[in-house]
Amino acid sequence: MNAASYSPAWLRALTAPLPEGLASPLETARFELNAFYPADQMPEICFREEMGDSYRIERADGRLRLSGGKTGVLYGAYALIFTSVCGTSVRLGSSAPYYPLRVLSCWDNMDGSVERGYSGNSLWFEGGHVRYDPARIRQLGRMLAGAGINVLCVNNVNVHYPAQELIASQLNETAALAAELRPFGVRLMLSVDFSMPLSQGVGTADPLDENVQRWWRERAKRIWEAVPDFAGFMVKADSEHRPGPNAYGRTHAEGANMLARAIAPYGGKLIWRAFVYDCMQDWRDTLTDRAKAAFEIYKPLDGRFDDNVILQVKHGPFDFQVREPVSPLLLSMPRTHLALEVQLAQEYTGQQKDIYAMLPLWREIFDTVGKDKVEAFTAVSNLGRDANWTGHPFAALNLFAFGAFGWDPDSDPERVTRLWARLTYGLKPAEEDTLVSWLLRSRSIYEKCTSNLGLGWMVTPNTHYGPNPWGYEFQSWGTYNRADRNAVGVDRTKTGTNYVSQYPEELKRLYEDPRSCPENLLLFFHRLRYDCVMADGRTLIQRLYDDHFDGFMETEEMARALLSLPLPQEDMEQVEDRMRLQLENAREWRDVTNTFFHRLSGVEDARGRKIYE
Amino acid sequence: MNAASYSPAWLRALTAPLPEGLASPLETARFELNAFYPADQMPEICFREEMGDSYRIERADGRLRLSGGKTGVLYGAYALIFTSVCGTSVRLGSSAPYYPLRVLSCWDNMDGSVERGYSGNSLWFEGGHVRYDPARIRQLGRMLAGAGINVLCVNNVNVHYPAQELIASQLNETAALAAELRPFGVRLMLSVDFSMPLSQGVGTADPLDENVQRWWRERAKRIWEAVPDFAGFMVKADSEHRPGPNAYGRTHAEGANMLARAIAPYGGKLIWRAFVYDCMQDWRDTLTDRAKAAFEIYKPLDGRFDDNVILQVKHGPFDFQVREPVSPLLLSMPRTHLALEVQLAQEYTGQQKDIYAMLPLWREIFDTVGKDKVEAFTAVSNLGRDANWTGHPFAALNLFAFGAFGWDPDSDPERVTRLWARLTYGLKPAEEDTLVSWLLRSRSIYEKCTSNLGLGWMVTPNTHYGPNPWGYEFQSWGTYNRADRNAVGVDRTKTGTNYVSQYPEELKRLYEDPRSCPENLLLFFHRLRYDCVMADGRTLIQRLYDDHFDGFMETEEMARALLSLPLPQEDMEQVEDRMRLQLENAREWRDVTNTFFHRLSGVEDARGRKIYE
Repeated sequence: MNAASYSPAWLRALTAPLPEGLASPLETARFELNAFYPADQMPEICFREEMGDSYRIERADGRLRLSGGKTGVLYGAYALIFTSVCGTSVRLGSSAPYYPLRVLSCWDNMDGSVERGYSGNSLWFEGGHVRYDPARIRQLGRMLAGAGINVLCVNNVNVHYPAQELIASQLNETAALAAELRPFGVRLMLSVDFSMPLSQGVGTADPLDENVQRWWRERAKRIWEAVPDFAGFMVKADSEHRPGPNAYGRTHAEGANMLARAIAPYGGKLIWRAFVYDCMQDWRDTLTDRAKAAFEIYKPLDGRFDDNVILQVKHGPFDFQVREPVSPLLLSMPRTHLALEVQLAQEYTGQQKDIYAMLPLWREIFDTVGKDKVEAFTAVSNLGRDANWTGHPFAALNLFAFGAFGWDPDSDPERVTRLWARLTYGLKPAEEDTLVSWLLRSRSIYEKCTSNLGLGWMVTPNTHYGPNPWGYEFQSWGTYNRADRNAVGVDRTKTGTNYVSQYPEELKRLYEDPRSCPENLLLFFHRLRYDCVMADGRTLIQRLYDDHFDGFMETEEMARALLSLPLPQEDMEQVEDRMRLQLENAREWRDVTNTFFHRLSGVEDARGRKIYE
Repeated sequence: MNAASYSPAWLRALTAPLPEGLASPLETARFELNAFYPADQMPEICFREEMGDSYRIERADGRLRLSGGKTGVLYGAYALIFTSVCGTSVRLGSSAPYYPLRVLSCWDNMDGSVERGYSGNSLWFEGGHVRYDPARIRQLGRMLAGAGINVLCVNNVNVHYPAQELIASQLNETAALAAELRPFGVRLMLSVDFSMPLSQGVGTADPLDENVQRWWRERAKRIWEAVPDFAGFMVKADSEHRPGPNAYGRTHAEGANMLARAIAPYGGKLIWRAFVYDCMQDWRDTLTDRAKAAFEIYKPLDGRFDDNVILQVKHGPFDFQVREPVSPLLLSMPRTHLALEVQLAQEYTGQQKDIYAMLPLWREIFDTVGKDKVEAFTAVSNLGRDANWTGHPFAALNLFAFGAFGWDPDSDPERVTRLWARLTYGLKPAEEDTLVSWLLRSRSIYEKCTSNLGLGWMVTPNTHYGPNPWGYEFQSWGTYNRADRNAVGVDRTKTGTNYVSQYPEELKRLYEDPRSCPENLLLFFHRLRYDCVMADGRTLIQRLYDDHFDGFMETEEMARALLSLPLPQEDMEQVEDRMRLQLENAREWRDVTNTFFHRLSGVEDARGRKIYE
């Protein structure tokens, strides 16, 4: 397969291969518009440096006029083309991204593997080096710019050897990749290893040590010499056995600020991940609550981070589950720059085999948190070397939508899904309705199958795909359901771990009372008996059974509907293959979970459906 | 560390480095005796070819005389030396091994890893090649001959690339290793990939295809030209996704006989593993019983294997668990040559971190099966590149004892353990008693911790270390405990899977009635309620709790006793480190399993001990 055929699906209309040597996003915009529009319809382009990321579309003298800044002009070009492809009328006026940083974080290792990657190997690493097909990287740039993504963090936050060399002996390879992406307005970011000075002869990585500080300053100088528009560093420190400032008795603020100061002279940003907890918890300990960890560690540090530090917080207090409440940290750091982190790679949400459109999840998060609480939007990438980039063809929606929500966090899930669907498949209206409506329901269906009433972590350990209700129950990861023959769930109110007290008063009151707590979070916050009666009159155990039966039936219904669509053959083959796996998985979730609760509770299904022994 | 210091512990007395170029076991015997005995006490050596593996010790003219065959003379030399080291009186008379084949099966991969290896990397593979320290391989030869082991199968039964090349492009490397071991009477065997003709251009691996047959005949010719005393092949076929004759609609007899005929002209043996079952079982299916698989597949083939085929049967119907009944296949194949397979690598029995001496297990097996039912004794190796060969210093006992039981399956566990202990540590009598008695109790203690009343498979999936009571419960491996809030265990009598009917009448009657079934197999054969009353008046659930509490306390007692022994410092450090892990593991087993059953049953411990929520 040649590079041209790796067109990201929603850019099918852009058939012209991107040439080498495009000098800037402006030049790329010119190329794209020229290739797309007949000469007589070609929009006029006005470059306005001061407009930066934003653009404006006007109609003047019967012609479209696109004004835009350095990157805005390219975003505007794609906006015009999309409108044209969709056959909708051009929306005149200005557009600017709400979040200046829209970061795609790639967990790519230099051996070519991708941690939690479900669509093939790395697009740019192989055999310990930066190695790529330049034509494909240009397609990647087109795809990212088309979605509005402007920062690519190219290596795994778990920095495995030799990824340290990307800012040392292999810096020239880093620079070459950065140059490929520059014409698309995409800036490079790297994950760095906090302990790196140790292996480079400094003898310590203590952030308060002058030699360490000097080492990082010199390193930063060399990086920005090689990559003048380098975006900055991402750091996972003191988390899941990664090195960090705690080893030297220093706070995360001290660790982050040291790095931030080294890169501040160049405008670099330091993204510090707040995904820190005790991954060696004793399951016997019912008072320690992993959900509380990030707040307890970071809340006292509010206001102590430098201005170019961004604390990156996962959307929930755990780890990208199908359903979690929003992280209370997002609501508790008024004097700290925050980034909201989501995960396009469907680690716990179907692994790009099962359909799981994330837009409804993000809508809820932004509505609960408030878009103004964070200043950047970050996503773990779902990209890989597969011909279609994302494994499941529909998984591309999540990448596209990530860009859309980063541009406008008030985005309407239905509108974005419809735009992606129209760009990708150009179906007839009724068919498009079918596709869009099932995509929008997909998360709710997946939740019924895998994560009822706020219960998470019933997945197979390590792989995180498929059911294993007690697979994590007696382990050290802090992820327990505490089910027994009478009850299930963790009491996180003041009679339990009191996690709920980390929320602002209004949310705290909502969550702490089982009568007001949203049903989809009930067992996240409360421990309830199986015979407890829910709002609709069903018992808790019956609700658990019903959800699993319904989840499977709805998956079947979705399969029938989606497989009836006239998709292009190669997409259809992928969808068919994966739909088989998804059905098998939904059946497994139904039966394993129902059997699990039936063995514990002894309660029969009120409707007499089959629950296995 | 130099090779000389890698002396296997029980051969500490043999301090002379083995020279290169020993021409035969006879010459090795001469060297060992010369180096050990003062000239005036040097035994007389009489080589008698016809004695083969056996030897005779006499006293003549006030001198010891050792007569022996090609390998027997070396076994006799070690027997003499051991007697001398132990300070016991020489046992005059003849000795011959009961089993002509005493095979150590090594799951070594050519990348240097060892499947289920717990004592370091491979001793002879590295980077895709046969690579070893010749001096260390000579020490290995000394160790194997000293234990009476005469066949070494050097590569994993799961044949991973490039291990196929050991009988092809890397045959010269195979031959070189065989030459190193020849002076110790150790013959090489290889695991082969049944599908190999496929990758070699034959286009099929169908055993009834003439080209396939010819390919294997030619291959055998070349192997025996390179390694004239080559022992034969070991094959894992149609098992856990390995290729085999089933792919061509052929039986295992047809597959095995084809290979056997290729190697028969050279006296080669074909060891065919009977470890075959459906590893894609649906957990919902309560009638299929993995325990029944081998019997169902192989019993109809009795009498249909060629004379140089040996069907290798694991000791229990599952897979080297702490407690299983003996495999009924061992009692059902009167017209087939059988090998009994055990596993020194402690995959499910402590992984050479926890102490688990296997002698009592083997005593039970031989007593139940009858030594005459099998014609060879095979063990999965516990050796690796660790300085002390076996990780835990006490794990060496299992290797030593394997040789002893292969030589004499009527061996007394206490006598063999004492011999090993005296050779290894030369402790004072009371100390030796302490060591020996705890080693002999170690399996019973481990059983209380991990495998009560015949319940197995409550281990962490994949790693097989540590508790996870339902880790395998909803998977495809056929290993279920079916615990619910009222009862636990699998009914394998005629009201259940009827596995019990595979046994000869006497054993069948013993096992099928819960009143006569040995308690340590009760939940293997029966499904019983937690409130069922046991012979001693305790309820089943109380017995489960008691065993776990006792298992941990006995582990603590064992730790105190063993750590009080005056072991050599390097052994003591290893024992201390591992004892810490074993205690932690025993505590985990106690608490996880008790919590598991308490959550299900709701029954409190009658003695009020702590069971966690």
